[in-house]
Amino acid sequence: MAPGPQETDFVHMAIQDMWAPEKAEDHARARTPQGRVLSVLLYCTGEMSHFSKFMEDKPFPLQLVEWILRGVARVILANNPVSGALILGALVMASPWQALLGTVGLLASTLTAIIIGQDSAEIAGGLHGFNGMLVALLMGVFSSAGDWYWWLLIPACLGGATCTFLFSGLGPLLDRWDLPVAVFPFNMVIVLFLSCTGADHPYFPHYPAMPPGAPEGLNHTQLHIPQLLQGVVLGVGQIYACGALWPSLLILGGVLIFSPLMCVHALLGSGVGTAVGLSMAVRHEALYSGLSGFNGALGCMAVGGLFFTFNWKTHLFAIASAFLSAYTDIALSNLLGTVGLPACSWGATLIATLMLLLTAQHLSAYRIPIGRVGSPEHNLLKLSQWEEGAKDDSTDV
Amino acid sequence: MAPGPQETDFVHMAIQDMWAPEKAEDHARARTPQGRVLSVLLYCTGEMSHFSKFMEDKPFPLQLVEWILRGVARVILANNPVSGALILGALVMASPWQALLGTVGLLASTLTAIIIGQDSAEIAGGLHGFNGMLVALLMGVFSSAGDWYWWLLIPACLGGATCTFLFSGLGPLLDRWDLPVAVFPFNMVIVLFLSCTGADHPYFPHYPAMPPGAPEGLNHTQLHIPQLLQGVVLGVGQIYACGALWPSLLILGGVLIFSPLMCVHALLGSGVGTAVGLSMAVRHEALYSGLSGFNGALGCMAVGGLFFTFNWKTHLFAIASAFLSAYTDIALSNLLGTVGLPACSWGATLIATLMLLLTAQHLSAYRIPIGRVGSPEHNLLKLSQWEEGAKDDSTDV
Amino acid sequence: MAPGPQETDFVHMAIQDMWAPEKAEDHARARTPQGRVLSVLLYCTGEMSHFSKFMEDKPFPLQLVEWILRGVARVILANNPVSGALILGALVMASPWQALLGTVGLLASTLTAIIIGQDSAEIAGGLHGFNGMLVALLMGVFSSAGDWYWWLLIPACLGGATCTFLFSGLGPLLDRWDLPVAVFPFNMVIVLFLSCTGADHPYFPHYPAMPPGAPEGLNHTQLHIPQLLQGVVLGVGQIYACGALWPSLLILGGVLIFSPLMCVHALLGSGVGTAVGLSMAVRHEALYSGLSGFNGALGCMAVGGLFFTFNWKTHLFAIASAFLSAYTDIALSNLLGTVGLPACSWGATLIATLMLLLTAQHLSAYRIPIGRVGSPEHNLLKLSQWEEGAKDDSTDV
Repeated sequence: MAPGPQETDFVHMAIQDMWAPEKAEDHARARTPQGRVLSVLLYCTGEMSHFSKFMEDKPFPLQLVEWILRGVARVILANNPVSGALILGALVMASPWQALLGTVGLLASTLTAIIIGQDSAEIAGGLHGFNGMLVALLMGVFSSAGDWYWWLLIPACLGGATCTFLFSGLGPLLDRWDLPVAVFPFNMVIVLFLSCTGADHPYFPHYPAMPPGAPEGLNHTQLHIPQLLQGVVLGVGQIYACGALWPSLLILGGVLIFSPLMCVHALLGSGVGTAVGLSMAVRHEALYSGLSGFNGALGCMAVGGLFFTFNWKTHLFAIASAFLSAYTDIALSNLLGTVGLPACSWGATLIATLMLLLTAQHLSAYRIPIGRVGSPEHNLLKLSQWEEGAKDDSTDV
Repeated sequence: MAPGPQETDFVHMAIQDMWAPEKAEDHARARTPQGRVLSVLLYCTGEMSHFSKFMEDKPFPLQLVEWILRGVARVILANNPVSGALILGALVMASPWQALLGTVGLLASTLTAIIIGQDSAEIAGGLHGFNGMLVALLMGVFSSAGDWYWWLLIPACLGGATCTFLFSGLGPLLDRWDLPVAVFPFNMVIVLFLSCTGADHPYFPHYPAMPPGAPEGLNHTQLHIPQLLQGVVLGVGQIYACGALWPSLLILGGVLIFSPLMCVHALLGSGVGTAVGLSMAVRHEALYSGLSGFNGALGCMAVGGLFFTFNWKTHLFAIASAFLSAYTDIALSNLLGTVGLPACSWGATLIATLMLLLTAQHLSAYRIPIGRVGSPEHNLLKLSQWEEGAKDDSTDV
Repeated sequence: MAPGPQETDFVHMAIQDMWAPEKAEDHARARTPQGRVLSVLLYCTGEMSHFSKFMEDKPFPLQLVEWILRGVARVILANNPVSGALILGALVMASPWQALLGTVGLLASTLTAIIIGQDSAEIAGGLHGFNGMLVALLMGVFSSAGDWYWWLLIPACLGGATCTFLFSGLGPLLDRWDLPVAVFPFNMVIVLFLSCTGADHPYFPHYPAMPPGAPEGLNHTQLHIPQLLQGVVLGVGQIYACGALWPSLLILGGVLIFSPLMCVHALLGSGVGTAVGLSMAVRHEALYSGLSGFNGALGCMAVGGLFFTFNWKTHLFAIASAFLSAYTDIALSNLLGTVGLPACSWGATLIATLMLLLTAQHLSAYRIPIGRVGSPEHNLLKLSQWEEGAKDDSTDV
């Protein structure tokens, strides 16, 4: 059905066949330079489950690298080792110390999962790593002891290990409603860590979180539109607590490889979050740094294509989810800010969970059971096959 | 079996036949003036499910009016459009702006429910409106921008819509234990809204909530008993954030039409709440304004006849529920007051949920499955039929 | 199989046969002085289910005494009336007023359970008493009105009764995951009580809770090692809010009678908690008084032998649980301390619940269904029989 690569131009081909890795071989067989580039690109898109199969009989350290790269990508809801590698590169570019911290946290939680005997398929999918990575990254961001404060590796390891315990324990709780554990463990552990230590802690001092509508809430200066637009892109980077432009773009590139649909939703959600920040008159720095946008981005990505089959209805729900996530984030930031704590990604996590629970027919009809969630493009592709299969077996009891 | 209306006096007849709407036609047939008055009264009592049937083939705007009136009554646990109309009248009497705000919130949440595709039976029962109405009413009460601040309609609409999302999402969570969603969405949304904006917010400023045991907690003045008794009646009005006497009495009248038993429990619970306030030495203004009483009233109404078949045992549990609701309300008010938030009806909602979960045999034996809950009088009437039916089918798995 | 008591020395015999009450009769038959002492000792070990059977046909007041003594022991996860008597003695030794308060709270909650119709087997096991006792003890400790302030008996009774309601209501919620209600009711009620009243309440004034990392967090003085070691023992006493040495040792004795394994885990967990306190630089008084240790002790006891079959894997998990409990306790203490509330045993309760939920194969494989939990020694003994029985029936659906 797909036209031979010789007969059609490169861009058309790319659009038509991308995210259909099974066609990579066709293009490789074409033996043209474009065909070879395309075959490599196609090979790296989507969930790359063929790569997992390829790694199955490789030595443990190599496998661990794959799991860790998947874990890195999982933070932004992607499941693709190449995305993970790109994102890790972006983090090193932004701050080598932060990248080291994140990797240590990720390693600690993945190894803990192996040691305590978690399901090996989950570990191989990077599910036991991303919470630990986020905890370590946030520990680094909030630490007021400066970069390369080596003692911080201890709480990063312990925090990562604790995430695995929480992930394992929350699983059976949320499983009753076929809900993912998502970043609940990260949000819990970082709140506990920051409560445990205080601003003036002798070993692990940290900055208090600043609520977005702080006393100096009156913004006397004019809005700077280019900075605002930059803030939308930074909103995607802030998912990894990274506030620099180029690394954020690289992170976006990582998401693009996994799924262009999610990349669009990430930017859209970040834009919605920034608009919400404007409507609630938050500090301009919160808008410019992307802090207003990242909850919207996460809320939008989760609903738009990942946990629901993509169509215009779920697209509207994704925008609603971005709005709700961003408003909830501002509310929780103000609330937790009274005790000096950040709201992290509580807003997006709670709202995405709410969306998955919704009984509204126009959304719940497109819900994908957690066990079958893939990349948005994969979800669309498999829709018809699922509809066939759903006739004789129901997974959601 | 019922004696002919000609042979017996009006009062006796009313007591005997009221809340048995199926007898309305008998009285209408009697063609005496009393018979006609009685037939109209009887027609308006209880759940008025006959009226819903009558409206089924009417145009959409008329149906929407019925749904909205039912939604108004649902706030106080009643399900009767005439009660709703009476209560809406009471709100207009107390403050036309508040009545407008409430109606807008109610409309927003009901229309959102229609748009996102919620179950139409639930919408027709007014289940998707009352949370939105409460959110809008409370936004108006806490707003320090004064009446007729038209911008407030925007958060009222958004808050109402958010309530529908929460109602829809909490449903499957609570359904596992056959629990109603109740006013959880309202309580969550209003806390989030008040956290989102602050006392000095540029667009939506609001008063901070004052905890009942504030620093000036020492009550130097003598208690004024008539004001205290008035506070008991105002406690019922405070369910609609209304602190005026005549509207509160009209609201009580609305409850009376739905169910005299609930009307008695509302006053009883409000009295218990006021007594609890006295025992904890709250500010006298909290007692006089009815703020101490309304959680007790809600807690008492829920257990006394609505979710449990009425008898002396459940009556005692209803009083216990009122006590627990009122104490929990004071505790939560003090706790949330430290961050400037009100406790709304968290106390009554949590305690009523707890009561529904109770395994204690002397209460759980009288529990009515959520799907079969009607007016207390209806519940009593259907008890024997249910007991028959329960033998061959069990609904609570 | 057991050698005759005449032929072997007392200590060897004791070690070999202790916590096997069914052998008590053998020793009694031996008619030597050691045999008789041993027979009495053996009779008092473990769960003493034979004693419950013996009491079945005794008058109600005597039965109530047994239930209350079991309730006293339940606080520290033991289920043995002799342990309860020892511990009650320890409390009287430490403070007769506190012992009275605790007994009143325990009585109030047990009697409430009888009145509202809870399951009689649960009542007989002391399950409806221990939360009430803890609430009353903590009310006494935090009250700034001094000892023998008789009015405090009113909230002690009401708090105890409320605990029974919460225990009954939380049961069906947690039962879905086969989780015990544990001390959740106590933790909730004491937080509500302390929120309800404040530091300057006219009727029930209380001290504000002091977070462990208070402003004067800088510990200028040198650590006093003997006091630190004493703090480890006091950590066990602090489970009953008791900070004196000899009563704490008596409480440890009570645990020893129920199960030596739990006694070891209590001390181990308390030590871990103290080490955690050191690592987070808490106030020295918190270390010396045992307040840093008691959450660790509870977390360690729950996992080490009680809810999981004892072996070296679960032993390591018990230590991990102690660490997590202690860190969570410090975090929650700092967090709740900002509003003047104590963290009570939230840390240990949440972490123990998390451990029970864990899907990690190296722990969950040894989980004992709640309905079959006995003393650790009993659990070990019954392991092989259970494994047989598990083949044809599964309780955890």
